[in-house]
Amino acid sequence: MTPSATPAYRRLSVDERRRQLLDAALSLFAHRAPEDVSLDDVAEAAGVSRPLVYRYFPGGKQQLYEAALGSAAEELQQCFDEPREGPALPRLSRVLDRYLAFVDEHDTGFSALLQGGSVVETSRTTALVDGVRRSAAQHICRHLGVLDPGPRLRMTVRMWITAVEAASLIWLDEGKQPPAGELRDWLVEQFVAVLTVTAGRDPQTAALVGALAGDGRD
Amino acid sequence: MTPSATPAYRRLSVDERRRQLLDAALSLFAHRAPEDVSLDDVAEAAGVSRPLVYRYFPGGKQQLYEAALGSAAEELQQCFDEPREGPALPRLSRVLDRYLAFVDEHDTGFSALLQGGSVVETSRTTALVDGVRRSAAQHICRHLGVLDPGPRLRMTVRMWITAVEAASLIWLDEGKQPPAGELRDWLVEQFVAVLTVTAGRDPQTAALVGALAGDGRD
Repeated sequence: MTPSATPAYRRLSVDERRRQLLDAALSLFAHRAPEDVSLDDVAEAAGVSRPLVYRYFPGGKQQLYEAALGSAAEELQQCFDEPREGPALPRLSRVLDRYLAFVDEHDTGFSALLQGGSVVETSRTTALVDGVRRSAAQHICRHLGVLDPGPRLRMTVRMWITAVEAASLIWLDEGKQPPAGELRDWLVEQFVAVLTVTAGRDPQTAALVGALAGDGRD
Repeated sequence: MTPSATPAYRRLSVDERRRQLLDAALSLFAHRAPEDVSLDDVAEAAGVSRPLVYRYFPGGKQQLYEAALGSAAEELQQCFDEPREGPALPRLSRVLDRYLAFVDEHDTGFSALLQGGSVVETSRTTALVDGVRRSAAQHICRHLGVLDPGPRLRMTVRMWITAVEAASLIWLDEGKQPPAGELRDWLVEQFVAVLTVTAGRDPQTAALVGALAGDGRD
């Protein structure tokens, strides 16, 4: 424990310090439920004093948690940083690889967040999680080359995203079995299967499924 | 408004009175977010005095909300009251019919509950919702004739249940479109599709999918 800031730390800019504290908080939230992480723990993990943590997050634990969550949400968005070229399904697989790596890394914090019931869950944190879901749906539609998804396609994509979330939580619960690569392929196959079902009820989805099948051919 | 209990109400037994207050609460929670329902509203809706509501629910709004939720959870369980005979998929369709009727009836309260972020959400309410999900998975496996589902089949069923929940919320959001009957058929088709995907990776699920296909033949 470093009870007060050392000269080395003083050299950090405000942004760097904020980043350092958020990283420390995120790694704690990754392995413990939010209600079990105190500002003292964050100060200790970052090797700084508690007053310093309070200076950056005067709203205390709730503010720190929301900031850490916001930072995790940004990281999640980066899963979708994938050039929009080449066949869509392999792109979706790479997105899922990054997503599962994120789930793997953030573990307990990820479960606590998605399962709710946390003492620090508020309408703001819920809105943040919903924002990530909405943005994921948009990213996926764009990767599929659909700019204006109709209600049936949109519902199918959103249902699949929820199913992927459920799969991640179960995956963590079951000791990360099956291996991430197998889970990824299974999830992509499920996506194609539910799109194919929707294709029977919706011409837009039928056109998309046709295009995806064409994608696969050399 | 009836400011104090009238003789007619005095005749209700403790259980009947409790039931009456829960019904009044549920119908309010069905159309407003839990945080927008006061004990005064419940007293007014039930035509009784506020002190009477407090006598039955001394823990106030939180206790009333949890009791109403417990009663909704019981009602949800009843969706599965379906004789275990005849082909499994039509049985699942009937279960979904009852579930969608429940979602239709409880509307806003259902969304608020599942979307979380409510001020009255606690680890107890979350546990209740999770309990309903777990029990739904068991009921479905039993209807499918599977007593001991392996990890892949279990994960598939739980993912589909989450997808059904997501579909219900989107359905409420989108003015209950498509019509309930169409949504039900679409959800059952999706279930068969994801089971078929899992069948390629899991012999237990493959046997189940084979049995379901046989079911459909006369």
